[in-house]
Amino acid sequence: MTVFAASQQSAAGAGMLPSHQARLACRAGQADTTAGVAPGYVQGNLAILPEKFAAAFHRFCQLNPKPCPIIGMSDVGNPMIPALGLDLDIRTDLPRYRVWRDGEVIEEPTDIMAHWRDDLVAFVIGCSFSFEEALLADDIAIRHIDCKVRVPMYRTNIPCAPAGPFAGPMVVSMRPMKPKDAIRAVQITSRFPSVHGAPVHIGLPQSIGIADIAKPDYGDPVPIADDELPVFWACGVTPQAVIAAAKVPFAITHAPGLMLVTDLKNKHLAVL
Amino acid sequence: MTVFAASQQSAAGAGMLPSHQARLACRAGQADTTAGVAPGYVQGNLAILPEKFAAAFHRFCQLNPKPCPIIGMSDVGNPMIPALGLDLDIRTDLPRYRVWRDGEVIEEPTDIMAHWRDDLVAFVIGCSFSFEEALLADDIAIRHIDCKVRVPMYRTNIPCAPAGPFAGPMVVSMRPMKPKDAIRAVQITSRFPSVHGAPVHIGLPQSIGIADIAKPDYGDPVPIADDELPVFWACGVTPQAVIAAAKVPFAITHAPGLMLVTDLKNKHLAVL
Repeated sequence: MTVFAASQQSAAGAGMLPSHQARLACRAGQADTTAGVAPGYVQGNLAILPEKFAAAFHRFCQLNPKPCPIIGMSDVGNPMIPALGLDLDIRTDLPRYRVWRDGEVIEEPTDIMAHWRDDLVAFVIGCSFSFEEALLADDIAIRHIDCKVRVPMYRTNIPCAPAGPFAGPMVVSMRPMKPKDAIRAVQITSRFPSVHGAPVHIGLPQSIGIADIAKPDYGDPVPIADDELPVFWACGVTPQAVIAAAKVPFAITHAPGLMLVTDLKNKHLAVL
Repeated sequence: MTVFAASQQSAAGAGMLPSHQARLACRAGQADTTAGVAPGYVQGNLAILPEKFAAAFHRFCQLNPKPCPIIGMSDVGNPMIPALGLDLDIRTDLPRYRVWRDGEVIEEPTDIMAHWRDDLVAFVIGCSFSFEEALLADDIAIRHIDCKVRVPMYRTNIPCAPAGPFAGPMVVSMRPMKPKDAIRAVQITSRFPSVHGAPVHIGLPQSIGIADIAKPDYGDPVPIADDELPVFWACGVTPQAVIAAAKVPFAITHAPGLMLVTDLKNKHLAVL
């Protein structure tokens, strides 16, 4: 990924980017969500792994760009990612983290200063917030936003390409739409390959291994009208599910819905 | 439309374009179909109307670009359309025509020399052959081609925007596809707005007024597998249906499947 933070301006005061302000609020423990924060700025999923596993995870992301689009990476042991934001410290700048040991969450701290190590590599992965903003800007309604719930997500029978210990099925998010909006949504999200891109499926949940659309594996169910189709996008929960399944001895991720706010602009991610 | 014929080379002999050769064969009465003729070259639907109705028809096309994308027009009374092809004579260069009086086909001649008048305007309208070529080039199978039948077409409840006497529902063509191919087909055909562009509907035929997908209003039925969705594109039969419904005193169209072969290349119509 070669997009750099839109504006590396001074950290001081009045001219500060909303995204930078959001990170400072997270750092100060004054934020409990990133939903709706710093509109227009890219938010990302976080995965941190020891160098020993990072190469295989990087390869996994490379092989599965739709669920795992990398928008930024740290150097080994360096918690700063200047390409994603001025003064961005991955150890403090998310509202909440998950610390994993052997595939289990053992802690959900608000910073990971005590957990940081010289061998850790941080991956920031594109997230659906970016393409949802593009859909809303085109007057396409998003059901879970209207319903004020979490997006419904499902494990599928679509296999990810494995890499080292990382393997498993793709997790998808679902948004019901009228067919003409679904067609438009394919066009709009195709422009954003670094935040999951075009849908991976439309209309026939059984054929991707979803037995009951009313029972998502993650998030909340939403109603689907008779004149709507379920539209499925590759989901950033996939890497987290894969990390859990791999039972790596140590990993850190963001807590669901509490993302890294970057200084990149959503509209700058568009390929066209 | 500002695309001009790819190559206005000499009419003589060896260097002749396949499209030009095809038109000369039509002119000589040696062609009975244009399906599969001159691969790579744009074929078009034809509608010829007296000047008195041409302005309203032009407005109808402008208002309904998905079913009626104009790729070329003649000047009033001039049967030559050099922008679409070297030496192209709209009176002779299609294999077969339909002559309409008051909404009824009264004749299906192989040329319209006897019917040509100084007040006629010819419209050449983009056709699905162009986007089907792009789909096939991307390894997306097309059911009616595999089944060796005509594409199934349906009258819908989607109203066209009316203009003067021209009004009526959109006619659509249907191709069954697996959802991932349908998504890819949206991407591919979005690049070709001058030959119907992206689909107008996916998956729920009842919601666009199609009572029985097994009974097309034009063309032939094709099988749809359980893991496929019907994908619908705006169809160039729409203007012909609208001309018939308007019962204009006089009009000429191509006969179904027997199109005008132009010197434009399909790939040059892509907007990206």
